[in-house]
Parts: sequence; C-alpha cells; structure tokens
Amino acid sequence: MNEINDINIDLSCTEKCEGCEKYFDCNMPQKDRLLVQVRMQRARKALAQVKHKIISVGGKGGVGKTLCAVNIAAALAMKGRKVGILDQVFDGPCVPRMLGVERKGMEYTEEGLVPTEAILGIKVASMGLILGEDEVVTWFHEMKRNATEELICHVLWGELDYLIVDVPAGTSSDTVNVIQYIPDMDGATVVTVPSEVSQAVAYKAVVLLQKANIPVFGVFENQGTFTCPTCGLQTDILQSGGGLRIAGKTDVPFIGSIPLDQRVAECADDGTPVVYKHPESEAGQIFIKAAELIEKRCGMA
Amino acid sequence: MNEINDINIDLSCTEKCEGCEKYFDCNMPQKDRLLVQVRMQRARKALAQVKHKIISVGGKGGVGKTLCAVNIAAALAMKGRKVGILDQVFDGPCVPRMLGVERKGMEYTEEGLVPTEAILGIKVASMGLILGEDEVVTWFHEMKRNATEELICHVLWGELDYLIVDVPAGTSSDTVNVIQYIPDMDGATVVTVPSEVSQAVAYKAVVLLQKANIPVFGVFENQGTFTCPTCGLQTDILQSGGGLRIAGKTDVPFIGSIPLDQRVAECADDGTPVVYKHPESEAGQIFIKAAELIEKRCGMA
Repeated sequence: MNEINDINIDLSCTEKCEGCEKYFDCNMPQKDRLLVQVRMQRARKALAQVKHKIISVGGKGGVGKTLCAVNIAAALAMKGRKVGILDQVFDGPCVPRMLGVERKGMEYTEEGLVPTEAILGIKVASMGLILGEDEVVTWFHEMKRNATEELICHVLWGELDYLIVDVPAGTSSDTVNVIQYIPDMDGATVVTVPSEVSQAVAYKAVVLLQKANIPVFGVFENQGTFTCPTCGLQTDILQSGGGLRIAGKTDVPFIGSIPLDQRVAECADDGTPVVYKHPESEAGQIFIKAAELIEKRCGMA
Repeated sequence: MNEINDINIDLSCTEKCEGCEKYFDCNMPQKDRLLVQVRMQRARKALAQVKHKIISVGGKGGVGKTLCAVNIAAALAMKGRKVGILDQVFDGPCVPRMLGVERKGMEYTEEGLVPTEAILGIKVASMGLILGEDEVVTWFHEMKRNATEELICHVLWGELDYLIVDVPAGTSSDTVNVIQYIPDMDGATVVTVPSEVSQAVAYKAVVLLQKANIPVFGVFENQGTFTCPTCGLQTDILQSGGGLRIAGKTDVPFIGSIPLDQRVAECADDGTPVVYKHPESEAGQIFIKAAELIEKRCGMA
C-alpha cells in the first residue's frame, strides 16, 4: 500500500505522461490533461503547414457527409487551392472510392504516412487505403483511438490551403475525439436529408459544434427534390424543407438543397466528384457556392 | 510487489467478477470470460419469454435499417404476433419517431424498465424514450456499454413471439456487443441501398454475421427505382442492382427492392409503418414477404 501511495504523490513527475512507466498506476489530477496536451501538440505539428481545417459533419449516417466532403474538396481544388481530405471514418470509409483511389494504397515511410493523390491533386488519407475493401475489422474503442491518432498525427500532408475532415455519423466519441485533437478547426459544414428523422440528429450535431466553438459555415440538404427527366414533374420523394428548417432553428446559413439526381450517385460510384464532372448541374453549383463561402469565411476570397 | 503477485494467483477467487473488490487488480485469464458469462446469463434471463430474436443490420448508415426493423415488426404484428423492438442505437435513435411514440417516455419500476406500447401493440424500448429529442449526449465507450446492458438486461418484455433488434450502422463494437449479449439470435436481415459505396459496407456486415453464426434470412435493397407519378417513367436515381449483387455474392436470399416512394418517407416521419398504412404498396408487399420469410425460418409459419 505504501508503494501505491508513493506513486500517487510522486514528486518526481516529469509531466511527460506518454512513455512514463508509472502511467497506469498514476492518479495525479493533471494526468489526462497532460496527455491531451501532448496529443494536441503532436497534431499541431503534423498539421503545421495546413492553413485551414474544415470538418464535414452529418449527424445521422448516410445523409451525404462524405459526398459533401469530397465535392467541397474538389470545388476548392478547382479554384487552384491545395487540398487534402482526412477520412476519419474507420467502419466503412467511403472517401477513397468516391475519389477513385480505393486500390491505390498508402505508403509508409520512416517520417510518416504518405497521402495518396487523387483527381485535381487532392491528397487523401484514409483507413480504406490501408485495409482492403473486403477486410472486415471490428473496431473496438482503443483501436479507434489509436487509428484516429495515427491519421491525425502521422500523415505527411506538407503544405495545404485546406484540409477537409470527414467524420463518422453522430455526436459520439469518434467525432469528439477528432475535435479534441484539432481544437483550432476553422469551421464546419453540416449535412441533413429532408426528413424529420434526420433533422433531429443533425440538430444535435450543430449544438455539439457550437459547444465546441467551431463556427458552422452552413447547412446542406441532400436528396432534395427529384425532377422527372421526361415530364419535368418535381417530386419531394424524401420530404422537403428539412435543411432550411434546421438552418433557421440553429441560426446557421443554408447553402442549398442538392437534388436527387442520377448523376450525383453515378459520380460517387465512379470516383469522380460531381462538381468536377457536371459543374453546371444544380449539385455542382451548390458545391461551388459552398467553396466560395468557405473561402470567404477563411479570409481567402 | 508481493501484494500484487498475491492477487494474481489468488486462490480465493469466487468467479463472481462483478462486485469483486479485486476486479481492477485482477489479471486472471478467466476474468473477462467470466464477466461475459455473467452478462450473457443476465440477458438470457431478461429475454426468457421471447421466442425469437431477429437483428436488423445495415452496414452503412442511413440505408434504412430502422425503416426495415419497424416495418418487419409491424408486418409480424399484423399477423397477430406479439412483437417488441429493442432499439440499440444511442446516437440518434429513430425507432420511437418512426412508431409515433417519441414523446411517450418509458417507465422505470423496481423490477426494470417498462417498454412503451406503440401501434399494433408493438412494445418499444429505446434510449430515445429516456432522453429528450433535443438532448445532446456524447456517448463515450463505457456509457455505451452500460446503456447496451441496461436495454438488453433490464427491460420487462414479458411474453413475445419476436424481438426485433435495431443496431447502429457498421461492424463496430456496438454491433458486436449486442451479438455477444444475445448469442442465440435466430437470424438477421441486412439492408443496403443500390450504390456501390453502400454495398461494400453491407458486405462486411454479412461476413460479420456469418462469422458469428447468425443465419442471414435475407437482404433488402432500399431506395430503389422511382416511378414518376405523372408519366410513369422509371428512374434508378441512386443506381440499381446493389441488393441483388450482394445477395448473390454472399449466397443469401434477396427479399426485394423497396422503391423510392414518397409514402415510405411520409410514413416514417408520421410515425406509422408503411406496411400498415399502405399494405398494398410495393414497399408494403416486400415487408409482408419478409415477415412470411421470418415466420418460415423460425418455424412459426
């Protein structure tokens, strides 16, 4: 017992928690704070040459978070910006496929992980490039935290104007972990689909971002009105107005409603951002508008 | 040091890990195994009067897992079965809203949690009934595990023919935890949307279920072909064939493709299962077929 008490009031503490042999026995109140600081420092170093960091949040899953992240990155790259995407989704990461680099892999070097280059020179780091597409990994808590750290702190981004960060659905610890590592996020975009069910979850995401003092640049609505290519009839298949309502409720700008459009899904599966292949389409125009908004909010316009 | 060694070779072990004061110092190889057994026993006791347990899995988020869970439950209840839904989603649970009970809450008693009754007598247990809709909770690892246990082991289901379990997207520890608690799951249904991106994730879910020896009763495709209500033109807005392809690849029956149909989204937001309100619709017919398949596979037909 004396031994344990000694550890707890250890005066020889170097305040370097990681690598400390007493780590698991240590009860000092500053323990976690110090560890978080070490992590934040490491992340800051890894992202030192990244001018702006934007997080793409969606609340509910499957609403188009990755679609927006990939197209925002492409729209910024089309303006001549140096852009990277950090895919923080481990359980079914979709960024590599949506940018057509799913078979390219990622190189390890002694200095760190080398991001893969996609269309328009966009640099991509994703667990999807490390694991095979058919590999089934059950991500337990500690593994996720390690992978989060690996991708935030050990990727050799070099100089970037923008890093777009794609996070898993929800307001869970996965998203919070990323925000803790990168507390100086410049801003966020939020995506919802029109339905009520999705909005309730997106609302929680906006509240979380506001609590974390991350400016929400705007809200996208995805899977909006469908226009019949033959007769021109417009149908709100998945309801309507959800994006506008959530923007109003949270006092955040509404960027636009991305319509249900075959080209959007085709491009995602083909690995070409729709804003690049069909810049004139309604979806394309919304992503160009989003890029302009981001440039303005980041003082780059 | 001697004290710690003593603990590690403790011969007074009662094999009752929970409540053991030496728990955190204990390194015995059987520690976790015993704990899992205790949990499994507790779950078995709570579900003793439940004849069949079906898990609704989706791989990727937002593909319609909860939609399928709710409509399968309704279709089985329409056949006169006693049905419950256990909503294991904590981060944006949607079951209460889709069954119109989001404001009903759940009663605590000394014996346990009383499930809320929805349309057709369906019993519902969900964190969404305990938390308010606007309440933002960041679910850290331990909280999730505790909540999983709370809902699996402390709900007073009483006698049920079927318990449908809705789990979060992905093949992550959230889903695995549920499967560990309920190892005698009768079967699973898997949902995907037509796109390639979604299929890759659904495939991983099927592989996980097969590894866990849970029979996959069938695969649904959601958000399939849209038929224009004016001119009748059929459009595969979100691509096509994904459900059939994954069923073929994994050798699992294909249940059907739920079309993109305004009524499906309307019913979800209104809190009435589409199979109940529009049993004649294509979506309704697919859920009736799924219920028949489940009855057959569970020996209840």
